Amino acid sequence: MSQHILKNTIEDLELVRSKSPLVHNITNYVVMNNTANALLAIGASPIMAHAIEEVEEMVTICSATVINIGTLSEPWIQSMEKAAKKAVSLGKPLVLDPVGAGASNIRNAAIRRILDAGNPTIVRGNASEILSTLSSSGKTKGVDATDSSESAVETGKSLSKVTGGVVVISGATDFILKGTDMAQISNGDALMTKVTGLGCTASALCGAFAAVQKDQFRAATSAMAVMGIAGEMAKSKTASPGSFQVAFLDALYELNADTIKQKLNAK
Amino acid sequence: MSQHILKNTIEDLELVRSKSPLVHNITNYVVMNNTANALLAIGASPIMAHAIEEVEEMVTICSATVINIGTLSEPWIQSMEKAAKKAVSLGKPLVLDPVGAGASNIRNAAIRRILDAGNPTIVRGNASEILSTLSSSGKTKGVDATDSSESAVETGKSLSKVTGGVVVISGATDFILKGTDMAQISNGDALMTKVTGLGCTASALCGAFAAVQKDQFRAATSAMAVMGIAGEMAKSKTASPGSFQVAFLDALYELNADTIKQKLNAK
Amino acid sequence: MSQHILKNTIEDLELVRSKSPLVHNITNYVVMNNTANALLAIGASPIMAHAIEEVEEMVTICSATVINIGTLSEPWIQSMEKAAKKAVSLGKPLVLDPVGAGASNIRNAAIRRILDAGNPTIVRGNASEILSTLSSSGKTKGVDATDSSESAVETGKSLSKVTGGVVVISGATDFILKGTDMAQISNGDALMTKVTGLGCTASALCGAFAAVQKDQFRAATSAMAVMGIAGEMAKSKTASPGSFQVAFLDALYELNADTIKQKLNAK
Repeated sequence: MSQHILKNTIEDLELVRSKSPLVHNITNYVVMNNTANALLAIGASPIMAHAIEEVEEMVTICSATVINIGTLSEPWIQSMEKAAKKAVSLGKPLVLDPVGAGASNIRNAAIRRILDAGNPTIVRGNASEILSTLSSSGKTKGVDATDSSESAVETGKSLSKVTGGVVVISGATDFILKGTDMAQISNGDALMTKVTGLGCTASALCGAFAAVQKDQFRAATSAMAVMGIAGEMAKSKTASPGSFQVAFLDALYELNADTIKQKLNAK
Repeated sequence: MSQHILKNTIEDLELVRSKSPLVHNITNYVVMNNTANALLAIGASPIMAHAIEEVEEMVTICSATVINIGTLSEPWIQSMEKAAKKAVSLGKPLVLDPVGAGASNIRNAAIRRILDAGNPTIVRGNASEILSTLSSSGKTKGVDATDSSESAVETGKSLSKVTGGVVVISGATDFILKGTDMAQISNGDALMTKVTGLGCTASALCGAFAAVQKDQFRAATSAMAVMGIAGEMAKSKTASPGSFQVAFLDALYELNADTIKQKLNAK
Repeated sequence: MSQHILKNTIEDLELVRSKSPLVHNITNYVVMNNTANALLAIGASPIMAHAIEEVEEMVTICSATVINIGTLSEPWIQSMEKAAKKAVSLGKPLVLDPVGAGASNIRNAAIRRILDAGNPTIVRGNASEILSTLSSSGKTKGVDATDSSESAVETGKSLSKVTGGVVVISGATDFILKGTDMAQISNGDALMTKVTGLGCTASALCGAFAAVQKDQFRAATSAMAVMGIAGEMAKSKTASPGSFQVAFLDALYELNADTIKQKLNAK
């Protein structure tokens, strides 16, 4: 499958850059600046808007919506529900990043409410978040709470059945799952865990690729490939997290077919 | 007029640095950090405060107030109205950045409410935002929806008549308009559009210069000159947006009479 | 005392890095990204969460809570009160950063409400903020409004008596006070005042060290030592504020026993 992913990633990146899709984000305060900059760097056009009065309009004018519950509160959850419902009703890509799933009751409730409002075409989180998202969906029980990659893959497949969409489990290897399909991206660098919000950036890039590539499994795979490759490019510039954050944005802007060919580690 | 603008920009920058004015910002979540850092780098002192209970006090202790509707919601709009009213009642500079004007009904309504609460001494936006701001003012109709520079200038002049203040249209060339006066700054770099919130930074700098220079047309012109020159300085350091954002802040801190003389492209 | 502080700082930094404590932050919009990145760079694990429905859970799962009133509003103050009460009831470290104390009535009221809800184990601010915090506590009157270091130390001691905890006064020299104990850190660089939110970072680091070192006076001293040393390391890389902000995060990640030995200026 690797040659497939290589070709698709290069094509999809070209699509993002040529179409410059509007991507609507209802995301957390911590990462808004970086997320917007990452979307600009990859070639998309970010809109950050959360007011309940305008989220339906924003979903309508944008090509994808990304919902991230990092710093949620009740008014924001209501906007997220409304946006999710609208995106699904319009058949537009909807990405959910269940940040901190499992850490509090309101997070679990928010995830359930958002899933009830509209099934995301892509859910992206780490193993623990994907596990808690499945639990929160209310459509499973007795989930085994181990967070190993293997169990996470089974959990991800179960969540994919619940949503009918793609599930991405981020980690040293990223697993992209839908139904019986699975892709794996083994790019990236451990230093990425020392910069806040790169998971959120991954979800936003999923939104950018989902906006231009109808095949959401392929879109998510391309997005995760680009994330990991940019991480490696940044690591080649610096070994410390402050300058890594800067170099990562530069890398998103600079990466091209050649760097993807050199670095992609997928199957 | 170029020699005039050169002399004024150098003098006004010196005023910002020597007076270090307090600039009150009610701005969006995406850019708060960068805006505060840009104000510090140029020599001003930022205060970011939006609670309705304190905005009047903040307007009172600051030398200028900047209102930016980037990530608005109803409670914030109410604070913006209150701040605008207070600034006008005290005769203090008031800058409005109508981010995303035209993208949703609540944005247009917010602009109208803020304009009704108090006329900004400076409105700064791109061509499309200035056009939508004029429409939202409720004091015109039949605005032609072309966003070309030429039409934008006429639109800007109309908006200036409505507010009685300065209107700045950002773009490859920035137009600063008031009544029959017009200045043009042709500095800057296209890479500035790949970093989120540099428009918001421009508005904040307008606030800093407006705080120390009573002639608001001159203040806005100096601010836009400094923005564009810092952009060129940053571009000379890097061609990628992550490091550009960093280099831009450095440039605001480093620029001086010599760099202004070397680079200013105004008329 | 300097050899003492040297040994403690090295040991406490090692504790932060080996334990990677969860630090809960209810902080302001301006600094959330930098604060989270600073906590990651020093080796801690940040959680930013402010919803009233979840703050008690977050206090419970974290090893310290940091409350920062930089961009407060009524709903956030209520969450801060609830978090402070919970932290004290669980005997967990609680850091208060009274940003802008004295600048508005709601800030002073918020400080009083938070102090009433639970006494912080550490309060950190500049001289003016510490003075206003003491006034706001409602447990003093006739405070002399000079902001000199000398008067600030007396003020800090008074505030320490009110809270029963540590008080840190940031400045060219940082004073760490508790009862009759006092430590002084004279590291750092003036350029730190040209980057927004480094005071907030100092408070967050106090939280990280307080999470792993029960002696809160020692924890605060170690945190301020690390702040100042990282500032000097960053200054050795750059003289401009944009790149300083980046270099500062790098320095937090890179500093070690050797750099602490070389640079610590404490008594």
